[in-house]
Parts: sequence; C-alpha cells; structure tokens
Amino acid sequence: MNLRSISAELIGSFSCVAALFAAILFAEPAGGGLVATALAPGLAFIAMSYAVGHVSGGHFNPAVTLGLVAGGRFAPAQALGYIAAQLVGAIAAASLIYVIRAGASSGDWPTLSAAASTFGGKSQFSLMSVMLIEWLTTALLVIVFMGATSSTAPSGVAPLAIGFSITMFHIMALAVSNAALNPARATAAAIFTDAHALAQLWVFWVAPILGAVTGGLIARWLNEE
Amino acid sequence: MNLRSISAELIGSFSCVAALFAAILFAEPAGGGLVATALAPGLAFIAMSYAVGHVSGGHFNPAVTLGLVAGGRFAPAQALGYIAAQLVGAIAAASLIYVIRAGASSGDWPTLSAAASTFGGKSQFSLMSVMLIEWLTTALLVIVFMGATSSTAPSGVAPLAIGFSITMFHIMALAVSNAALNPARATAAAIFTDAHALAQLWVFWVAPILGAVTGGLIARWLNEE
Amino acid sequence: MNLRSISAELIGSFSCVAALFAAILFAEPAGGGLVATALAPGLAFIAMSYAVGHVSGGHFNPAVTLGLVAGGRFAPAQALGYIAAQLVGAIAAASLIYVIRAGASSGDWPTLSAAASTFGGKSQFSLMSVMLIEWLTTALLVIVFMGATSSTAPSGVAPLAIGFSITMFHIMALAVSNAALNPARATAAAIFTDAHALAQLWVFWVAPILGAVTGGLIARWLNEE
Amino acid sequence: MNLRSISAELIGSFSCVAALFAAILFAEPAGGGLVATALAPGLAFIAMSYAVGHVSGGHFNPAVTLGLVAGGRFAPAQALGYIAAQLVGAIAAASLIYVIRAGASSGDWPTLSAAASTFGGKSQFSLMSVMLIEWLTTALLVIVFMGATSSTAPSGVAPLAIGFSITMFHIMALAVSNAALNPARATAAAIFTDAHALAQLWVFWVAPILGAVTGGLIARWLNEE
Repeated sequence: MNLRSISAELIGSFSCVAALFAAILFAEPAGGGLVATALAPGLAFIAMSYAVGHVSGGHFNPAVTLGLVAGGRFAPAQALGYIAAQLVGAIAAASLIYVIRAGASSGDWPTLSAAASTFGGKSQFSLMSVMLIEWLTTALLVIVFMGATSSTAPSGVAPLAIGFSITMFHIMALAVSNAALNPARATAAAIFTDAHALAQLWVFWVAPILGAVTGGLIARWLNEE
Repeated sequence: MNLRSISAELIGSFSCVAALFAAILFAEPAGGGLVATALAPGLAFIAMSYAVGHVSGGHFNPAVTLGLVAGGRFAPAQALGYIAAQLVGAIAAASLIYVIRAGASSGDWPTLSAAASTFGGKSQFSLMSVMLIEWLTTALLVIVFMGATSSTAPSGVAPLAIGFSITMFHIMALAVSNAALNPARATAAAIFTDAHALAQLWVFWVAPILGAVTGGLIARWLNEE
Repeated sequence: MNLRSISAELIGSFSCVAALFAAILFAEPAGGGLVATALAPGLAFIAMSYAVGHVSGGHFNPAVTLGLVAGGRFAPAQALGYIAAQLVGAIAAASLIYVIRAGASSGDWPTLSAAASTFGGKSQFSLMSVMLIEWLTTALLVIVFMGATSSTAPSGVAPLAIGFSITMFHIMALAVSNAALNPARATAAAIFTDAHALAQLWVFWVAPILGAVTGGLIARWLNEE
Repeated sequence: MNLRSISAELIGSFSCVAALFAAILFAEPAGGGLVATALAPGLAFIAMSYAVGHVSGGHFNPAVTLGLVAGGRFAPAQALGYIAAQLVGAIAAASLIYVIRAGASSGDWPTLSAAASTFGGKSQFSLMSVMLIEWLTTALLVIVFMGATSSTAPSGVAPLAIGFSITMFHIMALAVSNAALNPARATAAAIFTDAHALAQLWVFWVAPILGAVTGGLIARWLNEE
C-alpha cells in the first residue's frame, strides 16, 4: 500500500503543479488572465483528489501534510515519504512544462520564472505582506481540508470544497506572492528561475508551513478531535 | 459548544471578507476583472461552509442570521452573539488586508475604499437603485439558504447552492452597489474608507436586513415551516 | 400545493431572468465580459433549483415545461399555469432591473434592449443561424434535464448538471442569438426594447419550444420511459 | 441496449464538440476569452455525463474509450462501435456549427479552422511540445476518469471531477496544441479546415491515444484492478 500512496501523492502533486505552471505560461498570456490561472490548480486538485485521493488522502502539498500532522490527522512517520514524493512530482511537472515551453517558436511566451514566488525588490510586495498572505491562505486551506473531511461532514464532496478554496486562495494571493501556498511548487519554480528566487525560497517553506500548522491546530479544536 | 460556534462564525466571516477584499484590491486590477471578484466570496462561502458550517450553521453574515430568525430557523437569543462574531471577523479581515496592502511598493494598487459601498454623488447609482439591488439579492440569498437546507433538500450540497448564488449576486450587484449584501462586510470596508462611507453605512444595514427578512418570510411559507 | 408550486416557478423564473439581465446591463460592461453573463443564469438556476425546485420541479422556462410534457414527465393540464407564472416572473424581473438601471447617473450603461434577442438586420446572424442555435441548445437542455433527473441518475446533483449546462448554452449562443433559450425571458426583454424586437419575438417562442420538444422525445427514448 | 448506448455516445460527443466549437467561433471573440473556451467542453461533459452517461458510460472520446480498454474497464469488442459513434457525433457537430457560422453577416467571425490542432510552421509550438501536452493531458484524463468512477469513489460526483478536469486540460493545452485531447474532435475540425490540418491529423490520434493508454495502465495499477 505504501508504494501506491507515495505514487498517488507524486502523481497528484505533479498534476496540480503542471496545471498551474501551464496556466501561467500558456493560458494567462493567451487571453485567460488571472481567472484561468486561479481555476487551474483548484480544478486540478478536484480532479486528482477524486482520481487518487482514495489511495493517499490527497495532500499534494508538504504544508498540508505537516498541517494534518499538527491537526492529529496524519502519522508523523509517514510525512517524510509524502513530502519527498510531492517534491519529486512538482519538479517533474516543472521539467515537463520547461520542455514544452522550449518548443515555442516565439520568445514572447513567459518562462518558468513567471511562476516563481519572491518578495521585495522587483516584486511588488514586501516580505511582511508576502508572509502574511502565505500564512493566511495555508492556514485557511488546512481548516477547510480538515473540516470538509471531518467525520461529521457530508461524504464525497470534500474535494470540491478544498479545490474551490484553492482557486479562491489563488485569486487572493497571485498578485501578492504569486501564490506559492505549497513549498514543493515554490521549490520547483525557483529551481527553474535563478539564484535570487532560490535565495528567497525559505520564505515559501516557512510561511506556508507555519500557516498550515496554525490551521491544523485551529481545526483540531473546532472539530473537537 | 457556544464558544465553538461563535468562533466558527468569526472564522467564516473573516475568510469570506478577506477573500472578497483581496480580490478587489489585488486580483481585479491584476487581470482578474469582475469575474475574479465575484468568484472569491462565493468560493469562500463554499469552503468555509464545509469547513465550519457543521459547527455554527455557516451564516457568516448578520443579514442571513436575522433572515433565518424571521424564517423560524434560528433562535433570536443567539443572534446577537453571532452578529458580534461576524463583525469582529469582518473587521479583522479588513485589518489584515490593510496591512498586506501597506506592503505594496507601488501606490497604483487600490486601497480598501475600493471595497466600500456607497450611493449617489461619485457613486454611479441612486439610493433607490442601491437599496433595490441590496434588498433583492439578500432576499434571494435567504430563500436559497432556507430552501437548500430544508429537510426535503438533498443533503451535503447546500454549501454549493448557496456559494454559487453568492457569486451570482456579486455578478448582479458589484457594479451597482459594490455588492454589500452583508452588513458586517459593509461596516469593515466603511471603517477603512472615510466619513462619507460611514455616513451612508446605514443603507447597507437596512436594505440587506429588510431583504433577508423578506426572504425568510417567503421561504418559511414556501417550505411550509 | 398548487399555489406553492406556481409561486416557486414565478420566483425561480424571476431570479434567473433578473440574474441574466443584471449581468448583461451591469456586470458585462464593468469588466465581467461574456463569462460573467454566461455564469449568471447557470448559477441562478442552480441556486433556485435547490431553493424551490423541491416545490415545483424547477422548470423556470416555458420551453422546459413543454419539453417535459413531450417527454412524458409533466402533466399537460398543469403546463398553462406554470407558463403563466414563468411569464409573470420574467416580466417582473425585467421591470425591477429597468427601475435599477433608471437610477444610474450615467447614460453609458446599456439598457434592457441589450438583452433582447433578434436576427438579421443589425443583428449579426441570420434567421436560420438563430433558429438553429436556439433549437440546438434547448433540445440539449431538455435532454440534460430529463437525464439528470431520471430515476437511475444520482440524486441531489441534478441542479448542478442542468445549471452548468445553462452556462454552457449561453457560452454557445450569446453571440449568435443573445441566448434566448427561454420564451419568457425573450418576451420580457422584447417588451422593454421596441416594436422590432416584439415583431421578431415569435422566433424565440417557436425555436426553443421545437428544440425542447425534440429533446423531450429523444430523452424519453434514451431513458426508456 | 446497444443502439441506445451508441446513440448516447453520439449525442454526448456531438454536444461536447458543438460546445467547444461554438465557444471558439462565437464566445471567445465576443469577449469570453480563453476562460469561456475552456469552460465550454468541461461543462458540456458534466451535462452530457449526467444526461446520458448512465446509458453508455459517457466516454464521448475515442482516446478515453481506448484508455478504458487498456485499463480493463471496457470490452475491446465494443470499442469500434463507440469510436464510430463518437466520430459521427463530432462531425455532425462541426457541420451544424459550420452552418450557423455561415449565417453571420460579418466575415470577422473566425471559421472552423480556428478550432483545428496543428504544430510547427504557423502554429506556435513544435511537434514535440504538441505531442507532450496531448499525451500528458489525455493520460491525466483517463487517470481521473478511472479513479473517479472506481468502486471506492463517492458515487454521483464523477462527472463533476472529470468535467472540471477537462476544463483544466483546456486551460493547459489550448495555447499549445489547440487542445485536441479527443481524436474525434480533432478530425471534425481538420475536415472543415484544409489539407495541412488533415496531413497533421495523425498526431492528434497518436498522442491522445498513447496518453490515454498510459493513463489507463497507471490507473489500473493505482486502483488495484
């Protein structure tokens, strides 16, 4: 069962990141705008949660995995394997989108650096703003995840609740922090960007994980677990 | 149980207002347009209704709470606590979005005054138009809320019905009244705007509450309760 | 029970038409574009179907009522009352949107003539094109309605299937025929437009009803009823 | 039963292709942009899956049919009949949209060549990029289809999961390959385009089918079938 759940996390993380990066590189400049980019990762989560969520629980995000550990919903011993699979899936997705982008006949299409999360300098928002929006959205993400999958929640619709919330979080955060929300996704974009993005990457591990743990603790209390 | 349900209303109201205000300030000018702004509060309601709705009933809006009292669905004695929590949540959300906006390196981003509801003068619609659209949309909101959560309705999908209706109401009302629909959200925006918005705030308490009570009475009769 | 179901049809038809007309007059020119206009009637159907569909069956459209008669799903004797209620609801919605629009301080906002369905002349498509798209979309609408509410279909999600299809039909038909799809909605727009729109109104009764009957007969056979 | 399931595949394939082509020809240039075009086939799948999916299983796509054969979910002997019906439905849809477009009074509207999938030359992406995005999206499509309809999945919501994934795949692929994803849809567009599109059509059979078979084998293993 372990290999299957690790594979499910890898495929789910791969799909969510591929959807987001393809939207940023191909759909947004082709007239899709911010709405297309916000829809992609939310609909990808819904799709993959129904596709493989019954195998692995459908985290697809290291912050979610750690938030669920904090919330008492996931065994700490399994977290490392999940996070490794999520990282491999996210980096594989970035690699594939990189190769597809390389086949463009025009240099006008954005590159993967358009998917990188940064702060200050050329970025339009300060470190404080970026940390706050990342912390806020991941805290809410884990509260939604745990509430929608609690034993008292209606069964079968949790992927819709969580996926629609992911679209909503991207509407909130894309313009501020490029909506990392997911350290694996942030890492995959930074690797294909530059040393500047890599140097700031720690923020997009620290803030989402802090947010997710905050959310996990709040949801634990709210759901009386 | 009381502290939990008050907390759930506070968190839900906070999230719905934070989503809407972040959309107006950050997503709409970054290419999301009116569709992003209309999607945000609807998807936020869906997310928070599945996240904490089983704890508090998921009103997140003083007009809804009072409409449900009129509809015989909510105990009047609890309304004051709910409304206080909704106000605190909405004002906390506005404060957080204010701080995030303060970290923008450019003054081109809108401020929270872009989220304020007003009428006449610089606003593009008259007091009558604004009251009608606020009354209409909140009446329909409570009719949808009570119908979708009635004992004969399919269980588990009510948050989708109500959340999608909230997106629809924002499509209808954003250009007319900036879609208050929710006195707590209107108050939070007015506090961060100016004396003019505060002086007109009574409209965005009176019209939504009148609408919600109208809707509650109609739904009560339709659902034979 | 009869007064309740007639009232439910009136309220549902009112809401769907109000949502569409408000989107065309207020959201589309304020940056919502065609997507906002296509979302509004689909999300309105979902909302009202969950709100009052358990009372009346949730037709909200004379073509649907007649298509369900053809499909063996609705008693012919009740059709006239339903259609009258749908007409009253649609015209009431147009009247309310007319009054709200009248309170605009600028004449740049479109009027209800922007919601009228016509063909030839100033319109961009021929009578043949307009009849084909109206016939096609209403035929599919009744096929979706009857399939999604058949005894073998999963319960509780039919409003989502039908409502999303209505958004899809508007994406298909808005640019061609202004997406009448519903004779009550077409009548309400024509009344507030001009003699030209009224003279062409018969097309938006004939084509949707022919389409709906076609769809009803196909669905009857497909579902072995 | 056979005639009914063949008819259901024909109607479903017809509807999904008609929705997509109408969106590309009429909605996208009328202000709907890429989001309208991506929504149309996803919402059409949801609608037709609830409408006729209980009759035929709701493939509407030769690649899906063959992917389900590879995944052990569909009898190979029935595949040919399904694929023939899907082709007939897709070509009928293109014919109808062609006739509706012919009634436009202005030549500014795009023709069906705007719906054709090609690579290299005037197209903006290389053969390699186009094959990769087609392979990737159809592989994921079959993984979502099989996961969402597996015996352990929640019943009744699979059409939502698959339909939303189709919208997501169009967000990913429209700018790269014009999002064929479906050999029947690619064939229907190529027939109404030119010899160049027909000469490249093999790519839009090979890549989606390879992707679908890849997805079918992965999903078979993941779901332990």
